[in-house]
Amino acid sequence: MFAQNGDNGERKLCIICSKGTLDMAYPGLILANAALMEGIDVTMFFTFWGLDIINKKKMKHLKCTPLGNPAMGMPNLLAVMPGATHLVTKMMEKEIEKLDFPPVDEFLQMIADAGGEMYGCKMSMDMMKLTQDDLFEGVAGVVGAMEFMEMSENAQVLFI
Amino acid sequence: MFAQNGDNGERKLCIICSKGTLDMAYPGLILANAALMEGIDVTMFFTFWGLDIINKKKMKHLKCTPLGNPAMGMPNLLAVMPGATHLVTKMMEKEIEKLDFPPVDEFLQMIADAGGEMYGCKMSMDMMKLTQDDLFEGVAGVVGAMEFMEMSENAQVLFI
Amino acid sequence: MFAQNGDNGERKLCIICSKGTLDMAYPGLILANAALMEGIDVTMFFTFWGLDIINKKKMKHLKCTPLGNPAMGMPNLLAVMPGATHLVTKMMEKEIEKLDFPPVDEFLQMIADAGGEMYGCKMSMDMMKLTQDDLFEGVAGVVGAMEFMEMSENAQVLFI
Repeated sequence: MFAQNGDNGERKLCIICSKGTLDMAYPGLILANAALMEGIDVTMFFTFWGLDIINKKKMKHLKCTPLGNPAMGMPNLLAVMPGATHLVTKMMEKEIEKLDFPPVDEFLQMIADAGGEMYGCKMSMDMMKLTQDDLFEGVAGVVGAMEFMEMSENAQVLFI
Repeated sequence: MFAQNGDNGERKLCIICSKGTLDMAYPGLILANAALMEGIDVTMFFTFWGLDIINKKKMKHLKCTPLGNPAMGMPNLLAVMPGATHLVTKMMEKEIEKLDFPPVDEFLQMIADAGGEMYGCKMSMDMMKLTQDDLFEGVAGVVGAMEFMEMSENAQVLFI
Repeated sequence: MFAQNGDNGERKLCIICSKGTLDMAYPGLILANAALMEGIDVTMFFTFWGLDIINKKKMKHLKCTPLGNPAMGMPNLLAVMPGATHLVTKMMEKEIEKLDFPPVDEFLQMIADAGGEMYGCKMSMDMMKLTQDDLFEGVAGVVGAMEFMEMSENAQVLFI
C-alpha cells in the first residue's frame, strides 16, 4: 500500500496557506487546481495572513509589494513610496490575467466546484474576529490545528 | 503498511522553522503542539532566521513587522517608521495571549515536555557563531542537513 | 512497502523554490545537496521569484535584504536606505563562503552532477517572458503544475 493515500486509496494533498499577498496566494491556488485535475484529493487550510485569501472583503484586493523582496528589482526607497504597492499589484494582476488564470474569488470557486475542500483556521479567525459568514461561501468549515492534523493523515502537506 | 510511519509505526511530522518573526514562529509551534496532542511523533529543526525561536537571548523578543506585508494593512511609509514594529509586535503578543497561547519560551517547554524533539541547524549556528549553550535547554542537539534528512525519513515534512 | 518511494523503491524529495532572495535560496540548495548525499532522489521545481535562482542573468546576484525581516536586527528606517541591501548581501555572501558553501551557480552544478533534477515552472516563465535559454544549463526542462504533480507522486514535498 502506498503513502499519501486516503481511506479510498486516493492520493491526498493538503495545502496550508499562511500568506495574504497576491504573489503567495496564487502558488497555493495553482497547485490545488493542478492536483484536482490530476484526480488528487485536495484540502486547503487557510491560517494567519492566508485567511485574507478566503475573506470576502479582502480576497478581491490582495496586494503584492516589491518592498523587502529584492527579487522584484525595485529599490526599497522607491518601493516604500505611496502608490508603489498599488502599481506593482496592478501589474501582477494584468500578468496573471494574460496567462488566463482567474482572479482569486473565481479561482476559489473553480477549486470548490472541482471538489477541493477549504477550511479556515479557528485560532486565526478568533484573532482577527472573523466568523464563517466573513468567508467565501465555498469554505466547508472552520477547524482547529488538531482537526487539521487528523485531516492531513497520509497526505502530502505543503506550507505556503 | 502506511506512509509517514516511523520505525514503531507511528505517524511522524518534521517541521523546519526558517523564519524568526513572531507571526511565522507561532504556526510551527501550534502545529507541533497539535500533532503531539494527536499522538504524532514531532521533530522540529530550526534553521536560518528560525534559530531565533530557540535562541535564549532572542526567543522572548521575536518581532512582527507590517513592512512588506500588505496583508497587515499598514501603508509601508508608516510601517517603516521607528516604533511601528514595536507597536505591531505588542498588539500581536496581546492577541496571542488573549487566545491562551503561551509566550514562545513557555510554548517550547510545553512541546519539549510533550516529547517533541528540537534540533538546531549546525550550518546556521556556525554562521551566527552560536553554540548549544545559547539555545533553549530543551533542544536535544545540533545537527547538519544530512542528519536531518535521516531523521525525516517516512515523515511528513513542513518548511515554514 | 513504504511511503516516499519512487518506482524503484527509492526515497524521493521534491523541493519547490518560490523565493528569489539569497537567504531563501540556500535552504533549498543545502537540503537538495544533503538529500542527494544520502542517496535520495531529488527534484527541484523553481517557480515565481524562485526562478531567479536558475536564471543565468540573476543567479550570481541574488540579494538579501534586512527590510521587513526584524530577525536581522537592522531598524527598517536604516534598512530602507540605498546600499543597505548591498551591504547585507555582501556580508551574507562572505559568511556562506566561510562555511565552505559554493556560490549559487556552482551549487546548482554540484546538484546537477549528483543527479538532482531541476525544472522551471512554465507559468512563471511565461509571466517573466523567459525561455529555457535563459536558464542554467543543468535545468532538465520546463513543466507545468500538473506535470509537477505527477513528478511528485510518492515524494516528500517542501515548499520554500
